[in-house]
Amino acid sequence: MLEELKERVCAANLDLVSKGLVVYTWGNVSGISPDRRYVVIKPSGVDYAIMKPHHMVVVDLQTGEPVEGDFRPSSDTPTHLELYRRFAGIGGVTHTHSVNAVAYAQAGMDIPALGTTHADYFYGGIPCTRALTEQEVDEAYELNTGKVICETIMERGYDPMAVPAIVVRNHGPFSWGKDAAASVYHAVVMEKVAEMAMKTLQLNPHAAMPQYILDKHYSRKHGPNAYYGQKGDH
Amino acid sequence: MLEELKERVCAANLDLVSKGLVVYTWGNVSGISPDRRYVVIKPSGVDYAIMKPHHMVVVDLQTGEPVEGDFRPSSDTPTHLELYRRFAGIGGVTHTHSVNAVAYAQAGMDIPALGTTHADYFYGGIPCTRALTEQEVDEAYELNTGKVICETIMERGYDPMAVPAIVVRNHGPFSWGKDAAASVYHAVVMEKVAEMAMKTLQLNPHAAMPQYILDKHYSRKHGPNAYYGQKGDH
Amino acid sequence: MLEELKERVCAANLDLVSKGLVVYTWGNVSGISPDRRYVVIKPSGVDYAIMKPHHMVVVDLQTGEPVEGDFRPSSDTPTHLELYRRFAGIGGVTHTHSVNAVAYAQAGMDIPALGTTHADYFYGGIPCTRALTEQEVDEAYELNTGKVICETIMERGYDPMAVPAIVVRNHGPFSWGKDAAASVYHAVVMEKVAEMAMKTLQLNPHAAMPQYILDKHYSRKHGPNAYYGQKGDH
Amino acid sequence: MLEELKERVCAANLDLVSKGLVVYTWGNVSGISPDRRYVVIKPSGVDYAIMKPHHMVVVDLQTGEPVEGDFRPSSDTPTHLELYRRFAGIGGVTHTHSVNAVAYAQAGMDIPALGTTHADYFYGGIPCTRALTEQEVDEAYELNTGKVICETIMERGYDPMAVPAIVVRNHGPFSWGKDAAASVYHAVVMEKVAEMAMKTLQLNPHAAMPQYILDKHYSRKHGPNAYYGQKGDH
Repeated sequence: MLEELKERVCAANLDLVSKGLVVYTWGNVSGISPDRRYVVIKPSGVDYAIMKPHHMVVVDLQTGEPVEGDFRPSSDTPTHLELYRRFAGIGGVTHTHSVNAVAYAQAGMDIPALGTTHADYFYGGIPCTRALTEQEVDEAYELNTGKVICETIMERGYDPMAVPAIVVRNHGPFSWGKDAAASVYHAVVMEKVAEMAMKTLQLNPHAAMPQYILDKHYSRKHGPNAYYGQKGDH
Repeated sequence: MLEELKERVCAANLDLVSKGLVVYTWGNVSGISPDRRYVVIKPSGVDYAIMKPHHMVVVDLQTGEPVEGDFRPSSDTPTHLELYRRFAGIGGVTHTHSVNAVAYAQAGMDIPALGTTHADYFYGGIPCTRALTEQEVDEAYELNTGKVICETIMERGYDPMAVPAIVVRNHGPFSWGKDAAASVYHAVVMEKVAEMAMKTLQLNPHAAMPQYILDKHYSRKHGPNAYYGQKGDH
Repeated sequence: MLEELKERVCAANLDLVSKGLVVYTWGNVSGISPDRRYVVIKPSGVDYAIMKPHHMVVVDLQTGEPVEGDFRPSSDTPTHLELYRRFAGIGGVTHTHSVNAVAYAQAGMDIPALGTTHADYFYGGIPCTRALTEQEVDEAYELNTGKVICETIMERGYDPMAVPAIVVRNHGPFSWGKDAAASVYHAVVMEKVAEMAMKTLQLNPHAAMPQYILDKHYSRKHGPNAYYGQKGDH
Repeated sequence: MLEELKERVCAANLDLVSKGLVVYTWGNVSGISPDRRYVVIKPSGVDYAIMKPHHMVVVDLQTGEPVEGDFRPSSDTPTHLELYRRFAGIGGVTHTHSVNAVAYAQAGMDIPALGTTHADYFYGGIPCTRALTEQEVDEAYELNTGKVICETIMERGYDPMAVPAIVVRNHGPFSWGKDAAASVYHAVVMEKVAEMAMKTLQLNPHAAMPQYILDKHYSRKHGPNAYYGQKGDH
């Protein structure tokens, strides 16, 4: 079932390697079926060098139970599922431990919107969640990771499609998008803007960007009057 | 029309990838025709992996209208055109979001001339422009980006061929040169000297270079008595 | 003798190159025979480009004398042997001069446990040893390097399999694991978490991780109820 | 003439590219003939991608005049020659603008000896020269660069073979060794220890290494009782 989606999710996982965001078996990407009943996700602990579409695992969005596949799904699966259940517009989710985004997660800081590279993809700072409580960790760690992501996006008043990324405190980055490939794209850009922001703050701890430049750059790519790219592009 | 120029502009765009300055469809390079009537520029949002000379777009220098090509020109085209109109000596323009130069742009700081690597190509600090005003952004963002670049170079009293690069506040680097390839070369050197300067200031916040070393290194490559390279080199 | 072990130790040494941890002839990996009588280790000063399993040197665990091989064993061999004698559970040892771990060794600081990337592999901060005394250096430098590693792990009350890595003051990182490949894996992760920790502290000098997140992440991969990876994985 | 030396000098220059120390035509390596009458050096401004042994230029050690070759010698040739004239034991010289070593040169700081990676190759801190005076720059810039290097090594009381590298103030690194290949090796290690030292000082501005560890590591590779590498190795 869902053979085309498995191919696209597998390709998106392999793209994490080619973009330099992961080593060994780290990271995972998933995609949701058009009817939003099933999620296709990377298996846990399988080597990228041998990864093929048929290794992908199909799980039920509501129950989290595997419905097809010879492998266990990624241990982060409950986090992915929670995002799909709460963010109706998203079609793909990516999780990595990329170095610069992890540094922000470990520092407990938002990745601030300091320039147009950021504004082209994220309409505001990329938030850092609060730490999970001990009880949240004990009871359902991965599910509660998803819940704290959604809680943070909501508390900030963000449209999840306008700020399609977050860093989880003491953990690392999650991103999403219209499909699996878009969620990887956002993971790559998040890592790049995290590095830019860190170096900017090293040069000038008071660096900031006027709101109207954020507005302009985000809207020229994403608003109703977007004029970046070819006609018909995203 | 301008087939040879399209080949050279396409090659210069692809060089951005091989030099590690861009990911995805980021960055753009243009070149101007010998009669300075037409500018050949990268199309907007086209993947470097499939980019060919025939994808390049020809636009009219004065009107900015496309005169040949199946694609939209880069959304940064009005910035490029303004530079060609104001800087008579330049034949190519490059724009990237390379990490270290962007950090200076976001910090709102000039890239200071701290050593001979810088002095070999830039006769003084690489300036950072002021931020555009809200009105400038609203009315004609890309054109006004070009205007603020020219304004800054003029205010500093710089010959644009002696300091062929700038960082635009909250945005990123632009560079230029005698042709498209030279503008990419300057983008690569700018990124390198930005990294060097950042690390230098981390070690010694008071680092500086005597003016006479700047004079010497710039003149041994570019002055009337230049003796670097083979006879007849640039 | 021990041909299969030589192949695995040679492959683990070559993996140091492919993971970017070493240049020239730097670094060394060893593995111990199942009966724990012999250690197979990289020869000293042999180029990775031509390294083959038959170059590996077999030494006696107790005496340190070579028992097979045409080359001298790595000059760090006495350090490796001491670790095998004291840490009964380990099957492989790796030593590199990877940049970020060396920075912690030179700074005389533990690599702090600031996030789940660290907690997935190391159950606590990666310790930095004290400096060797002048007498320890003069009498038996490499052997005493092994002794100070063991002393530090014991003083911290660490299970060496739960914190399978250390940085030796003014020197660099050593790591170990169930076999040669696992010791390399830990060297790669140590280098990555050292880079993450350094960048985290640059953003927030007071960064820390709650103990219960450390507990959770370590136990989900390594405890009796581990649920990461496929059934039967380590 | 000197065909074998040309091959080795050409290979050493190309090694700068494979080790990531140079871009474009930056950097240069030379070697001296066994009778110490001629120096073979990279031509100025020739692309590494097409560089062949026959492009190397032969110059007279005393007069600096080219005696064979179709190209101009590197503009840094007078610096190389001065080092060969003053340091009797050296057979090769390398100059690059590698980023981390340049940062020390621009900061006007020695690269401090903070660990054994450094001590394995450099018996003490890698010095930073004083800045050349305006008169020295005007009269004979490249020759005086060589003179200030020799002056600095002598003032420190260094054996040039024991500290085979330096950074020239506001300029960048020079290194040397028994032959061209060894001078490149030292350039690679200098760049690596510069990066390590910078990161160490970021973590701990007071980091230092005891003298007896410097003594031990240098002597185990280079002293009369050296025991690193295979019998007969350097």
